[in-house]
Amino acid sequence: MAARLHAAAEKLPFLTRTMTPVEVLSEEGIELIEHNADTVLEECGIDFRGLPEALDLLKAAGAAVDGERVRFPRGMCREIVTASAPPQYVQHARNSANNVTIGGPHTVLAPAYGSPFVRDLDGGRRYGTIEDFRNFVKLTYMTPHLHHSGGTVCEPVDLPVNKRHLDMVYAHLRYSDKPFMGSVTHPSRAQDTVDMAKIAFGEKVLAENTVITSLINANSPLVWDSTMLGAAKVYAENNQANLITPFIIAGAMSPVTVAGTATQTLAEALAGMAFVQLVRPGAPVILGSFASSMSMQTGAPTFGTPEPALVLYVMGQLARRLGVPFRSGGHLCASKVPDAQAAFESAATMQPTFLGGVNFVLHAAGWLEGGLCMGYEKFILDVDQCGMWGAFVKGVDLSDNGQALDAILANGPGQHFLGTEHTLANFESAFYRSSVADNSSFEQWRDEGELDAVQRANKIWKQMLADYEPPPFDEAKDEELTEWIARKKSAVPDSNI
Amino acid sequence: MAARLHAAAEKLPFLTRTMTPVEVLSEEGIELIEHNADTVLEECGIDFRGLPEALDLLKAAGAAVDGERVRFPRGMCREIVTASAPPQYVQHARNSANNVTIGGPHTVLAPAYGSPFVRDLDGGRRYGTIEDFRNFVKLTYMTPHLHHSGGTVCEPVDLPVNKRHLDMVYAHLRYSDKPFMGSVTHPSRAQDTVDMAKIAFGEKVLAENTVITSLINANSPLVWDSTMLGAAKVYAENNQANLITPFIIAGAMSPVTVAGTATQTLAEALAGMAFVQLVRPGAPVILGSFASSMSMQTGAPTFGTPEPALVLYVMGQLARRLGVPFRSGGHLCASKVPDAQAAFESAATMQPTFLGGVNFVLHAAGWLEGGLCMGYEKFILDVDQCGMWGAFVKGVDLSDNGQALDAILANGPGQHFLGTEHTLANFESAFYRSSVADNSSFEQWRDEGELDAVQRANKIWKQMLADYEPPPFDEAKDEELTEWIARKKSAVPDSNI
Repeated sequence: MAARLHAAAEKLPFLTRTMTPVEVLSEEGIELIEHNADTVLEECGIDFRGLPEALDLLKAAGAAVDGERVRFPRGMCREIVTASAPPQYVQHARNSANNVTIGGPHTVLAPAYGSPFVRDLDGGRRYGTIEDFRNFVKLTYMTPHLHHSGGTVCEPVDLPVNKRHLDMVYAHLRYSDKPFMGSVTHPSRAQDTVDMAKIAFGEKVLAENTVITSLINANSPLVWDSTMLGAAKVYAENNQANLITPFIIAGAMSPVTVAGTATQTLAEALAGMAFVQLVRPGAPVILGSFASSMSMQTGAPTFGTPEPALVLYVMGQLARRLGVPFRSGGHLCASKVPDAQAAFESAATMQPTFLGGVNFVLHAAGWLEGGLCMGYEKFILDVDQCGMWGAFVKGVDLSDNGQALDAILANGPGQHFLGTEHTLANFESAFYRSSVADNSSFEQWRDEGELDAVQRANKIWKQMLADYEPPPFDEAKDEELTEWIARKKSAVPDSNI
Repeated sequence: MAARLHAAAEKLPFLTRTMTPVEVLSEEGIELIEHNADTVLEECGIDFRGLPEALDLLKAAGAAVDGERVRFPRGMCREIVTASAPPQYVQHARNSANNVTIGGPHTVLAPAYGSPFVRDLDGGRRYGTIEDFRNFVKLTYMTPHLHHSGGTVCEPVDLPVNKRHLDMVYAHLRYSDKPFMGSVTHPSRAQDTVDMAKIAFGEKVLAENTVITSLINANSPLVWDSTMLGAAKVYAENNQANLITPFIIAGAMSPVTVAGTATQTLAEALAGMAFVQLVRPGAPVILGSFASSMSMQTGAPTFGTPEPALVLYVMGQLARRLGVPFRSGGHLCASKVPDAQAAFESAATMQPTFLGGVNFVLHAAGWLEGGLCMGYEKFILDVDQCGMWGAFVKGVDLSDNGQALDAILANGPGQHFLGTEHTLANFESAFYRSSVADNSSFEQWRDEGELDAVQRANKIWKQMLADYEPPPFDEAKDEELTEWIARKKSAVPDSNI
């Protein structure tokens, strides 16, 4: 029996789950989905658009290419992926204490990604700026419950599209020392990310290690486009990691069923991962799945419903069978504000995230409005939940202290445990302490102004930003990086495409 | 392979889970808890207070009785329970279409229980009344997502303590036709419940069937008191069901650890269940567990934390090994209002409730403030989540229609699925539709007044009560019952003990 010590005081840069992931399908059911995905790849195929070299690579590997349509012999993609894709990899951080292992029983949490808007209790909803971006990088740096700085934590809409990636990558490198994600909006911006990482980490470190993990979304159904393929190619050539993720609103971009959505997700991901492995065998790839349901009245994506949770569990099973890390989940919601809807929806996605064995969790904090908005208070509420999950996945402490048999025997019937030796020895680390929850009496809560969770969270993020201090960064490197960015910016005019 | 048809249109009086429950401990770990519980029963023992006949029964069965302290030879309680306690049972409802099976892969959901206060958005927090009680019986009757009318859905504080059970039981019988719970605040009130059920169901039905399930809480640590034992005895003698539930705030009423709390819960429950089986072998008993964590600053119970979730999973494993139905869980929270704290905490308890295989879920809707308050809006929000879990536990549809392979193949790359034949045939039942969530665009939501989830829930419960129509009830029986209650009430003066 693994008698673990109570590990509450331990600070780890990522989580290690102790429970076997939940499986919602039998092996027979999983094989059916795999078989159907192969049928899709073989009979229907995938469009690889706008990147002739991708077609050449795939053809040379045995695929049938017809225009931009690529059809794969049964089993071909799986063979390519399993031959060279690593089952897990280490993403190095600027501070090596924050390196993360992605894959296996490990779970790495990153903030939400990609929202054009931000919201806080004081100012309401508005376009995101680079200041907001930096704020979320700083908040993520400060919390022990997020292990990764993420990527586009919000869109800095005040900066030109063709240059904002430079400020975003710089913010991750300068205001945090956790691992981060690179730009994917153009292959040249992916290359800029790699070049900046070379300055920050050193060329040798980058040549030998993965220091960037980036998000490559499919254009579902069954299309990979040149922007995403081009960015993925840059990262793979440099041995950096790609999250190969079909992003699917089921009913619009896939069939309305769980099994159908999982089948299509697997087919798209297999084709994308095979492409990456052909570019550079052994470059880290993560099987990603982002699936929401849809309001059949309005066509809007819906979150926290049972069907996407089932898709997530199925995709987790498929990823483990394939032997690659799995990305999915997060605190997803459709709600416009961090109310009970937001919390219920978010929790309903985090439950399969942890119990389904996700390895890399994008959108673990801040997400509102189906991803259109990054919320400051939502971020704080979500991070608190991330801490709870971190405590949960440690499992049950079965050491003698955890069993507490002597404490029960010594105490006897009718005697409370508050002042006992065992309680006093353990109470500080016994239970996860929420930073946001109010557990006072009704009367005390009322007398203190009847604050709700959002009002309390508002105070917390403000205090965190007031307390923020940047991690150390080599001055010469910072100067080199700043000058490099300045040269890049002055080389071309601003543009919003 | 079980190819199930999509069952969204199906209306069932209870849920049947298709997933294997999550196990957080290995068999070795579970055996350790069982061994320790036996050590507690053998070495320390349990107090059975104020009911000499209980001591006689236990002594005759082989226990060592010393004053009110009862010590059990190792394995004795388990042998008594496994010899006669049924692994599952049917609780009959006034409308047999609402009969529920408690045990096995089934889950039955009931509203919250026992709060002295109620809260709604308009009136805030106030003492509960019999009108509130009836309202919650009516709301529970109207929702398809709760299968059981519950018991003390709130305390009708406007009625005398010694008579309010008569009005409560009458409300369950008259305003609903779902199964219900009986009074446990005095053995004579348990007898009144049985007598009223005899009138409503007929003596023969009651003699041959279980029509009442009641909540028997231990006085932890390691004490059973005469009120609860006396009520349990009345129900058992009449072959009615008892939920034998150690109610534990860990750190105060048990050790601060997960394994210690589970050990003590098992010891207390085994002793209580053994007592019931000695009263009447075969009378239905459910192993109950209610465990919260505690704020070590204030001593207040805390909810939605990871540790009670782990206790729940462990207790589920223990109950299944023992072969009796399992009661735990619910939408528990410490929050005073139905905000994000309430929702996150509630969701964190419902996740182990469903994935841990709970059979009878008290507190599935309405709970606020650690059980001190029953919320109208919280009730609506919780019920919506119950519906989601109901859809989730059905699992993945692997029929041809569910696989949707032809739909994917026919559609092809880059074509959306909105108007396809498969989508049109399935969209009405494809995704769970929340009754409370707002999934409209930000602009539409803003223009409609920026309502949050609580404001929307407020409209829903009011509309439900406006639409309520009572189920049919035999007029002669109603008259008999009403007269019986009137006689009972006039026989003794009002009292608040």
